[in-house]
Amino acid sequence: MTKLSRREFLASTAAAMAAGPFISTSSMRARAQESRKLGFAICGLGKLSTDQIAPALMKTKHCRLAGIVTGTPAKAQAWQAKYGLDTRSVYSYDTMHRMAENRDIDVVYVVTPNALHARDTIAAAKAGKHVFCEKPLEISVERCQQMIDACRQAGRMLGTAYRCQFDPHHLECIRLARERVFGAPNIIQAGFAIDVGEPGQWRLKRELAGGGALMDVGIYALQATRYLSGEEPVLVSAVETKTDPRRFAEVDESMVWTTRFPSGVVAYCSTSYKAGGIQNLRVNADDGWFELDPAFFYGGNRGRRSDGKEIRYPQIDLFAAEMDDFAQCILEGRPTKVPGEEGLRDVRIMQAIYESARMSRAVSLA
Amino acid sequence: MTKLSRREFLASTAAAMAAGPFISTSSMRARAQESRKLGFAICGLGKLSTDQIAPALMKTKHCRLAGIVTGTPAKAQAWQAKYGLDTRSVYSYDTMHRMAENRDIDVVYVVTPNALHARDTIAAAKAGKHVFCEKPLEISVERCQQMIDACRQAGRMLGTAYRCQFDPHHLECIRLARERVFGAPNIIQAGFAIDVGEPGQWRLKRELAGGGALMDVGIYALQATRYLSGEEPVLVSAVETKTDPRRFAEVDESMVWTTRFPSGVVAYCSTSYKAGGIQNLRVNADDGWFELDPAFFYGGNRGRRSDGKEIRYPQIDLFAAEMDDFAQCILEGRPTKVPGEEGLRDVRIMQAIYESARMSRAVSLA
Repeated sequence: MTKLSRREFLASTAAAMAAGPFISTSSMRARAQESRKLGFAICGLGKLSTDQIAPALMKTKHCRLAGIVTGTPAKAQAWQAKYGLDTRSVYSYDTMHRMAENRDIDVVYVVTPNALHARDTIAAAKAGKHVFCEKPLEISVERCQQMIDACRQAGRMLGTAYRCQFDPHHLECIRLARERVFGAPNIIQAGFAIDVGEPGQWRLKRELAGGGALMDVGIYALQATRYLSGEEPVLVSAVETKTDPRRFAEVDESMVWTTRFPSGVVAYCSTSYKAGGIQNLRVNADDGWFELDPAFFYGGNRGRRSDGKEIRYPQIDLFAAEMDDFAQCILEGRPTKVPGEEGLRDVRIMQAIYESARMSRAVSLA
Repeated sequence: MTKLSRREFLASTAAAMAAGPFISTSSMRARAQESRKLGFAICGLGKLSTDQIAPALMKTKHCRLAGIVTGTPAKAQAWQAKYGLDTRSVYSYDTMHRMAENRDIDVVYVVTPNALHARDTIAAAKAGKHVFCEKPLEISVERCQQMIDACRQAGRMLGTAYRCQFDPHHLECIRLARERVFGAPNIIQAGFAIDVGEPGQWRLKRELAGGGALMDVGIYALQATRYLSGEEPVLVSAVETKTDPRRFAEVDESMVWTTRFPSGVVAYCSTSYKAGGIQNLRVNADDGWFELDPAFFYGGNRGRRSDGKEIRYPQIDLFAAEMDDFAQCILEGRPTKVPGEEGLRDVRIMQAIYESARMSRAVSLA
């Protein structure tokens, strides 16, 4: 069970007391039940927020929906109606500074396009809120650093929404790798490709997305090679391809890359926006192997091992899991395993992958 | 059924007539039954010849064991006893020129270490024999070309022992790719890693092997990306790793590489001598995918498709299949689909992979 930190306990008690005479007995009871729940404001009400994050938030133990940030009044109305949010819980990107006055909001979950993450994270931090931010953290190392600095200066936590780090299937693979159950890992393969769909969306615009398939889904494969090896790559080499230069005029369509890690582990990876079908990771170790296929779904991932055993766990809501973990980290005053620095590392490596593909040479990261 | 070419028919008839009064009625009958069978001499009596090729030869329809080449008298005796070979069917590497006088031998199957393939192929061609040669064809492009030239000058065929091109599973994958059953292929993944075993063997010596995992088993993954795309790569980028520099002092231990093909198809591949576990290929196409896993075994390969169907065929002996096909090509006077030129292409690309890893840059093959 979660333990409240002294500071959080005092804060929640103070809030309950401040509510004073206007709070009814039944709502006080509700409030008490929710005393361990942190208020999340969802910033950016696109498909991911609507279809995944908001429903997941309803399943969490330690979070509650406390606000929204949107530039579209129709979306605000729809969300208010659906989730019973009062008007003071609704913000636009220009009014986020007013969150400083809203004690109901503890965390802002930034779900805007990649290149707006810094803007929204910094605004939230300045309003005194913790920030949980979708991946990729931002589109450049510099902007990631600005986000990290802003949260540090505000004394607030910054988390990167790497949901796979909360998937029992991935956690089991990490255990198999770390405990050398099949000996030392030597070659890791990971790939994640999707059919990105609609031509008009922000994901296909460089200004908002910063990049294409690599930044959006290849990042899962890259992440996996890092947490499975437990190391940071020292060399990366990449080859890009574009078969539909009209649809993918501004961003990468497909990319394959290889990396070497300090211990000698190597990885080979792929990503694409052109079509799905690649959705897997495999760790080859000295005495065997294990894999997940599919590996990166929201749910329903499964795997197998060279000894014939399955890697299969009951499906959990990964968005709920990562939000609950972030809330618990805040409540318990301990660091998250997916801090902003973790998001920055991937952005740095992705920039090296782009550079390698562009320059036709390996790029050192040592 | 096989048709004899006019030349082959005359040759076999002349041979039967030349045998004259010394041939018994029963042996004449046996000879007639075998009239469509070409005589194969196995050159190099290592494990592959002993455990796979000779037993497979016994299962062929169009081949028979007609000779052996070895530098080890004990091996010669054991093979003579096991296969009932008379002394005139036994050669050493120094006496291969005498095969010119042995009309029983039509084809020499070269199974010596990689760096001896040119020596043995050229000797066989000079003795007027067709040559079927194990992969890799040789250890340099120059030597491959010498082999091709020697066979051409002798008016004999040169084939490369790419058994997977005779595996119904691979043939089905080629069909799925060519007929665009799941749309146009876009990303191909292939990997083949083995535990190479005994430290003293020739495969770990540069002088005899020319290279390590890439030359020995990575070549299967490379081949697969070429026959599945139906194209030749124009760019290759590779990263090498060595975690056991003592055992793999002279040859590559593990290699991961990426390639781009003219149509835009990209491939990402791996190979290793350090441990097995990677044994697969996967084609991601615009509307689905298909894969083989395991992909490169002598038998027992199997696969699946994104529409849920299996790719599974009754097990055949791939060594028998490739020898029978080569014999039929000779008997019918038609080209093999695995000529020396095909072997040379892979050696050229493998040299580029080594160069890319060594120089830390992509190597153009256009």
